[in-house]
Amino acid sequence: MRDCHREIAAWLTAAGAAVTVDAAGNLRGLYPASQRGAARLILGSHLDTVPNAGAYDGVLGVLIAVALLESLRGQSLPFAVEVVGFSEEEGVRFGTPFIGSRALVGRVDDQLLSLQDAAGASLRSAIENFGLSPAELTSAELHHDTLAYLEFHIEQGPVLESLNYPLAAVEAIAGQTRMEFVFLGRANHAGTTPMHLRRDSLAAAAEWIVAVEHTAQKDPDLVATVGRIDAKPGATNVIAGEVCVTLDVRHKSDDVRQRTTDALVENALHIADRRGLSLVSRVLLDQCAVAMDSYLLTEIDQAIRMTGSHPHRVVSGAGHDAMILAEKVPAGMIFLRTPGGISHDPAESVDVADVAKAIECGLCLLDQLAHSSRLQERMSRA
Amino acid sequence: MRDCHREIAAWLTAAGAAVTVDAAGNLRGLYPASQRGAARLILGSHLDTVPNAGAYDGVLGVLIAVALLESLRGQSLPFAVEVVGFSEEEGVRFGTPFIGSRALVGRVDDQLLSLQDAAGASLRSAIENFGLSPAELTSAELHHDTLAYLEFHIEQGPVLESLNYPLAAVEAIAGQTRMEFVFLGRANHAGTTPMHLRRDSLAAAAEWIVAVEHTAQKDPDLVATVGRIDAKPGATNVIAGEVCVTLDVRHKSDDVRQRTTDALVENALHIADRRGLSLVSRVLLDQCAVAMDSYLLTEIDQAIRMTGSHPHRVVSGAGHDAMILAEKVPAGMIFLRTPGGISHDPAESVDVADVAKAIECGLCLLDQLAHSSRLQERMSRA
Repeated sequence: MRDCHREIAAWLTAAGAAVTVDAAGNLRGLYPASQRGAARLILGSHLDTVPNAGAYDGVLGVLIAVALLESLRGQSLPFAVEVVGFSEEEGVRFGTPFIGSRALVGRVDDQLLSLQDAAGASLRSAIENFGLSPAELTSAELHHDTLAYLEFHIEQGPVLESLNYPLAAVEAIAGQTRMEFVFLGRANHAGTTPMHLRRDSLAAAAEWIVAVEHTAQKDPDLVATVGRIDAKPGATNVIAGEVCVTLDVRHKSDDVRQRTTDALVENALHIADRRGLSLVSRVLLDQCAVAMDSYLLTEIDQAIRMTGSHPHRVVSGAGHDAMILAEKVPAGMIFLRTPGGISHDPAESVDVADVAKAIECGLCLLDQLAHSSRLQERMSRA
Repeated sequence: MRDCHREIAAWLTAAGAAVTVDAAGNLRGLYPASQRGAARLILGSHLDTVPNAGAYDGVLGVLIAVALLESLRGQSLPFAVEVVGFSEEEGVRFGTPFIGSRALVGRVDDQLLSLQDAAGASLRSAIENFGLSPAELTSAELHHDTLAYLEFHIEQGPVLESLNYPLAAVEAIAGQTRMEFVFLGRANHAGTTPMHLRRDSLAAAAEWIVAVEHTAQKDPDLVATVGRIDAKPGATNVIAGEVCVTLDVRHKSDDVRQRTTDALVENALHIADRRGLSLVSRVLLDQCAVAMDSYLLTEIDQAIRMTGSHPHRVVSGAGHDAMILAEKVPAGMIFLRTPGGISHDPAESVDVADVAKAIECGLCLLDQLAHSSRLQERMSRA
């Protein structure tokens, strides 16, 4: 991460930004406005990724922001532009995501600082060992005059490719429910137990998994996934007595997500009951959907149109730093097409032409915002 | 096993039998016939069981044989009675079952002797370390004048309990097919991949598991089980890209078993194809059904009737030593009701009254066979 900061800091400095690393380990480069004391626009994404990842998740969004500053060639805008390369978006080390962006909204508290990594080191000590001071975390918080947050990010899914669009505006980040279900039947001999005397928990779970898929297929904005399954005792010749499965449900509407989840729990209970099994379920995560700013959405649509592409809006099924920033400031996101929808994998890629389109779109957006009467109004209030 | 042999050998000796341990570690007690050189009837079952087992699987059949000799009170029959307590029926140590009974039919060859346990010790060295000589294995083979093999065993299933019968004659030991199927789809993000762009291998496997159960439910003599499932990468928020499942199919008719297996493979291919997945399957075991001797079956029915119970015939879904002995001599089996169908578990049990019925049935059977003209005929040929 230090090497990464050094490289990007050099480019930011060359482009005219003043670079610092805040107490949460976020790299921040401030490109001044035409007037002192003007409000600021934040452009950013994260610098970390997952193990065995590709080269674009997160960091591409930071580099597009750097490229935008470079494209300005020293020309200033009515607002300052702050480029942020967030730390710890994925949550790999401490099991909790968005640590860098949480710092900007003032949500790195003692509980978060006490999180431990696999080796038992706390987040607090990790910050200190990086040469930073947890006591200074408040200075990482958003400046009161922040106008908005904009993030470019690869889609990490196959939708834009399937529609043949290079870019899309993110209208919302979907809410998520994650649950765990345990179907409890009775383990028994696969040879000596007739079908009608079985309490087969794997057959029950399979029936439910089919129902989960069927339910999700009814609404194009809904996704529901059973990704993990564990059957015990797990032998070829033994009927499974206990099966644990997970459920992941996402939708832009919290209401639809909740109703879907309720129906799937009801269905699991019904299947278990009809088969003489018992069912235990528990909620692991219940996270509300986050809408992106409607004004920024319109401006992003317009900027995409200016690049010659069809403006298209998508719901992000994955979480992003923009979701955290949206708690405090208007936030907007632009997705870049991801070939094959492949991400978090060394095969992750992006078309150079799409990156050029994204930079062009970003420049249009900066120009639109510089001439926006609405933003002028906000800036004068700041 | 040495303690077990010592205890049972003492009872056998007290009942009038001459006890030896053969080169395959089988305990053998020969109770003499009324005339020298008479043919012999073998009564037996196995002395080993699985880890964390109950107290009745196998050994109860040997003890019923001991009890039958005790009940004879020194009175001899027209044939000798050899009680055999088989070694290594379960196959726990060397991964291959029926080692003791294979020795009686001359099927312990060099390949079998080279099998290694988890610690790398060969079957050959295990035999030697028990104080026996692999070179003498041929002397463990069935005597040419063996009339028949009879085995009492707990059912290890719930059928007799559900029908309220203490005993049943086994008409056949079902054939078994064991297979492994791998559904290969594409792992992807559970949040960013819409339902219609997925190649979800767990959803495919679930659809097939439901079909397996449905197929087996159509024929009361058929059982089909998916007992093991492994989904990769196995994360809540990742669509499974690869799922491995096993299939276990059993039926008394090899033809029905083969047709069922073929149909399920066809169904798996169809599901994979429709979903854009690929499928790899392989056969792990293809074992034919073994019929029990029809004459002995009639005699067992009659003996059960003599105890005041309704004669009932069942197909054994599990393999037994009788299956191996049937390769060379007429074989018959009697099942005892298993409370709750629970076996291979410390909760395995048996009703004392059912054991008394089994001994009574065994005595009737010995008496019937002693007066059987058919057996007399065989004995005179021996």
